[in-house]
Amino acid sequence: MITESAFTKVDAGIIAQLTEILGQANVSTTQADIDLHSRDQSQHPAHASEVVVWPQTGEQVAQILRLANEHHIPVTPWGVGTSLEGNPIPVYGGILLTFERMTNIVQVHADDFQVTVQPGIGHKDLNAQLARQGLFFAPDPGANATVGGMLANNAAGIRTVKYGASKDNVLQMQVALADGRLIRVGSRSIKQSAGYDLLHLFVGSEGTLGIITEATLKLVPIAPYMSAALAAFDSVEDAVEAVVAVRGSGLDPAALELIDAAHAAMLREAEGVNLTDHVTLFMEFHSAHEESLDMGLEMVKEICEELGAVSFRSTTDPTERRQLWHARHASYEIMVRSHPDTGFFINDVAVPISAYPELIGYVEELKAEHGVTAYMIGHAGDGNIHVEFPYANEEEYKRSQMFNKLIVMKALSLNGTATGEHGVGIGKAPYMVNEHGPALDVMRSIKQLLDPNGILNPGKIFPPAQ
Amino acid sequence: MITESAFTKVDAGIIAQLTEILGQANVSTTQADIDLHSRDQSQHPAHASEVVVWPQTGEQVAQILRLANEHHIPVTPWGVGTSLEGNPIPVYGGILLTFERMTNIVQVHADDFQVTVQPGIGHKDLNAQLARQGLFFAPDPGANATVGGMLANNAAGIRTVKYGASKDNVLQMQVALADGRLIRVGSRSIKQSAGYDLLHLFVGSEGTLGIITEATLKLVPIAPYMSAALAAFDSVEDAVEAVVAVRGSGLDPAALELIDAAHAAMLREAEGVNLTDHVTLFMEFHSAHEESLDMGLEMVKEICEELGAVSFRSTTDPTERRQLWHARHASYEIMVRSHPDTGFFINDVAVPISAYPELIGYVEELKAEHGVTAYMIGHAGDGNIHVEFPYANEEEYKRSQMFNKLIVMKALSLNGTATGEHGVGIGKAPYMVNEHGPALDVMRSIKQLLDPNGILNPGKIFPPAQ
Repeated sequence: MITESAFTKVDAGIIAQLTEILGQANVSTTQADIDLHSRDQSQHPAHASEVVVWPQTGEQVAQILRLANEHHIPVTPWGVGTSLEGNPIPVYGGILLTFERMTNIVQVHADDFQVTVQPGIGHKDLNAQLARQGLFFAPDPGANATVGGMLANNAAGIRTVKYGASKDNVLQMQVALADGRLIRVGSRSIKQSAGYDLLHLFVGSEGTLGIITEATLKLVPIAPYMSAALAAFDSVEDAVEAVVAVRGSGLDPAALELIDAAHAAMLREAEGVNLTDHVTLFMEFHSAHEESLDMGLEMVKEICEELGAVSFRSTTDPTERRQLWHARHASYEIMVRSHPDTGFFINDVAVPISAYPELIGYVEELKAEHGVTAYMIGHAGDGNIHVEFPYANEEEYKRSQMFNKLIVMKALSLNGTATGEHGVGIGKAPYMVNEHGPALDVMRSIKQLLDPNGILNPGKIFPPAQ
Repeated sequence: MITESAFTKVDAGIIAQLTEILGQANVSTTQADIDLHSRDQSQHPAHASEVVVWPQTGEQVAQILRLANEHHIPVTPWGVGTSLEGNPIPVYGGILLTFERMTNIVQVHADDFQVTVQPGIGHKDLNAQLARQGLFFAPDPGANATVGGMLANNAAGIRTVKYGASKDNVLQMQVALADGRLIRVGSRSIKQSAGYDLLHLFVGSEGTLGIITEATLKLVPIAPYMSAALAAFDSVEDAVEAVVAVRGSGLDPAALELIDAAHAAMLREAEGVNLTDHVTLFMEFHSAHEESLDMGLEMVKEICEELGAVSFRSTTDPTERRQLWHARHASYEIMVRSHPDTGFFINDVAVPISAYPELIGYVEELKAEHGVTAYMIGHAGDGNIHVEFPYANEEEYKRSQMFNKLIVMKALSLNGTATGEHGVGIGKAPYMVNEHGPALDVMRSIKQLLDPNGILNPGKIFPPAQ
C-alpha cells in the first residue's frame, strides 16, 4: 500500500507554482504555520506538513490538486482542527490545504430553507448569521467545526435524533477531484432520483476521494418553543426502555442524551451540579406552539416514571432549560477541569439502541475488572456513546487504547459501528475490515479509481498494509 | 457504448445452469411469463426478456449474476412493475430477475424502529404487518411498489416532506455485485461515519451497479393523532408563499400537496368532489397529543388566510380527514376514469420551492400557447411536480414528449432535477449530461468499475451513445 517513498517532496519548484496559483500571502513554509496545522484535538501524534496553503476559490483548490497529482505530492485538507480521530493530520507530509480563507456565505436561499457556503465557515458562525432569518443548520458536534470538516467526517452531535447527521443536511456540493476536475454533485432540489448519489459518496470520505469546495446546506426553522427534561434511573436498562418509549410516543425529541452514574457523580463532585449518582437522561423538545410543550412534558413524565425513573425534572422556561442542560453541555469542560494534567482518550461507537444496555454493561465490566476510571456520555437517541478514558502517563494511554479496541469490537459484534460520528481518520482504520468485510474492497477500488496516485489525505480510512 | 451485439443470447446451456441454481419451478421461458415482465406502468414500449427467473435467496441472486457476467448476458431486476420511467424493462433481453418470491419480512427490530426485509415485499403489505407494532415505513409512492424497487429508484411520495425519501429510510442492505460478490453496505446503527457511503451509492442506482437482495429499513411510530387541511388560492404564487410559511412555522407538515386549478376543475367535474377552480393545497399534520392538532390548524388557517387563501377547510376527525384528502389520493384514478381510451404521459421534475411558481407558470404558458390539456399535481413541500398529459394518438404522444423535454430543461435551468422520484430509467437518460455535467463522467467510471461487462440493467440511466 502507501509508503512514504511513493510520494515526492515539496521543493522550491512546487512552492513557486503554488505561489503562482495562490499568491505569496497564501503559501507558507514557516514552522509556526506548519505546527499550527500538525494535529487535531485527538490523542494522535502531530505530524508536520511541508507547506501550508490557503486557497480562496474552488478553482484554486482544483489547480493545487492537479499540480500535486502530477508530482505525486500528498494533499491533506484542513478545516479548523477540531476533529477527534486524527482526520486532518498530514501523516505523509506534503501540502496542508486549509480552508481558513474560504469562510464566506455565498448565498442564503431563505424561502428554500437553504444556504450555500464556502467550506471553511464554522457552523456556529454560520448559525449566528442565519439566526436573523429564523433558520439554522442543525448538526452540532459541539466544537465550532467548519462545515467542510463536518461534511467530510459526517459529523453529527446532540440533535441528530430529530434533525439527522451532516449527511442528512446537505443538498449539493462542489468537489475538486485529484486530477483537477471540479464537479458539482447533488441538487438544490430537495428530491432527486437522477443517477448515482455521488453527493453521499463524498460526504464522510474524509477528503480521500475529493475535496469539498462549496456546499449547499439544508436549513430548518428555529423552533419557536422548546422544553427540557431530565430523568434519573437506577439502571441503563430502565433508561433505554424510556428512550425507546419516548421515541415511540411520536413526541419526536430534538435531543435524547445519556450520561452514566460515574459521569453524573463526577460532574456533581467537581462543580456541584444538581445530579445524583444515577444514569441520567437529558431531553429536549421543540414545538411550534407553547401550549403543547406542557402536554408533551406530561407524557414524558408519565413514561419515565412508569419505567422506573427515580427523579424527573422539566421546564419550558428558557433560562431554566439552559440550567437543566448545563451539566450536559459543559460535561467535557468540567471533566477536563477536574482532571488537571490529564489527557482524554475519547471513544466513539454506536449500536442499535436495543444493544445499548449490553454495550454499556460491557464497559462497566471492563472498568470493574481493571479498576479504571472512565465516563460514559452518549447520544442515546441514536445508540451512539463516547467512553472517555483519562490518562496521565504512557501506561494509562496504552490501556485506554486496549479498552478502545475491546469496545469497538463489542460494538461491531452488536451490529454497530466503530465510529458513529468522529470518522475513521487514523484511529479507526484498523477496524474497517471487521466492519465492512468484502465491501471494504469496493471502497478501495473506488479510492483507486478516483485517486490513483493516492495523494488525497493518505493514511486515513484504509487499514495500513499488513 | 452498449449495443445488442455486446451481449450473448440465453441458450439451452444457460437455462440448464439457471435451473440448477434455482430449480425448474423458478425458471420460465413461456411467452406468458415473458410478457408479464416486459413493461412497467409507463408509456415506454414493452421489450421481451429471454428468460424469467425467481430467486429466493441473496446467494442465488449472486450466483445468477456470476453466471450472467461470465457469459455477458444482461440481467434486469424486477419488483412488481409499478415504475414510471421504464426502469425495469429488459431492453436488451437476457435474464429478467424478479423478486416475486423474495417477499419475506426477515426480522422486525421493534425497539430499534427497524425491519429487515427481502426486496420483493410490497411497502403496503409491509406496513399492514407492521401496524400491530405501531410502526410504519414512511415512503409511499402510491402504488404497492416493492421495497427493493423503491430503494433502487429512490422512490418518495406524499410524506417525504416530513419523513424523507426512500434513501432517508434505509440503514443497511445486502447487495449482489455483477461479479457474484455479495456485500453488506451501511449499518444497523442509525449513525455511522465509517468510510464511504456505499449504501447510498446503490440506492437510486436502478440496479445498474448491483442488485439489492435484502434491506434493513428505518421505521417511524404511527402518529397517534392526525389532522388535515385544504386551502384554495387564486395563484400558484400565493399557494407557494403559504407552503414556505407553513414549513417555516415549525409545524412540520407530514404532507403538503398541490393541485392546479385545471386538475381541481377536472376532479370536480368528473366525480363531483368538493373543489373549486383554484390552486389547492392539501396538508396533513401528525401529533403525539390530540389537543395540539387544533392549535396547529389555527396557525395554518391564519397563515393561509393572511396569504390570500380564498377558502380553508380543516378537520381532526379521521373520517372527515379521509374525505378531505379523497380528491388527492384518488386523483390519478379519477383522471384515468374521466379520460377513457387515453394514455397519460407523466412528467416528474423538481425544483427548489422558490422556483415553483416560475416552473408552473412556464407550464401554463405552454398549455395556453399550444391549446393542450394537462393537469398538474405536486408534492409542493418538496418542490416536486408531475405534469400529466393525456394522449389519444401518436401525434399527441409526440407532443407530450416534446413538452416533457421542455419542462425538464426548464426545471434544470431553475437549479432543479430531471426526476424528483421516478428515477432516470429510459426516459430521463437523455438529460443526464445537462443535469450532471462532468459529474456524469464520474458516474460512468463507477459503472465501468463495478460492472465492466455492462450486464446490469443495460440501457438505463446513461444517455445512449451519440
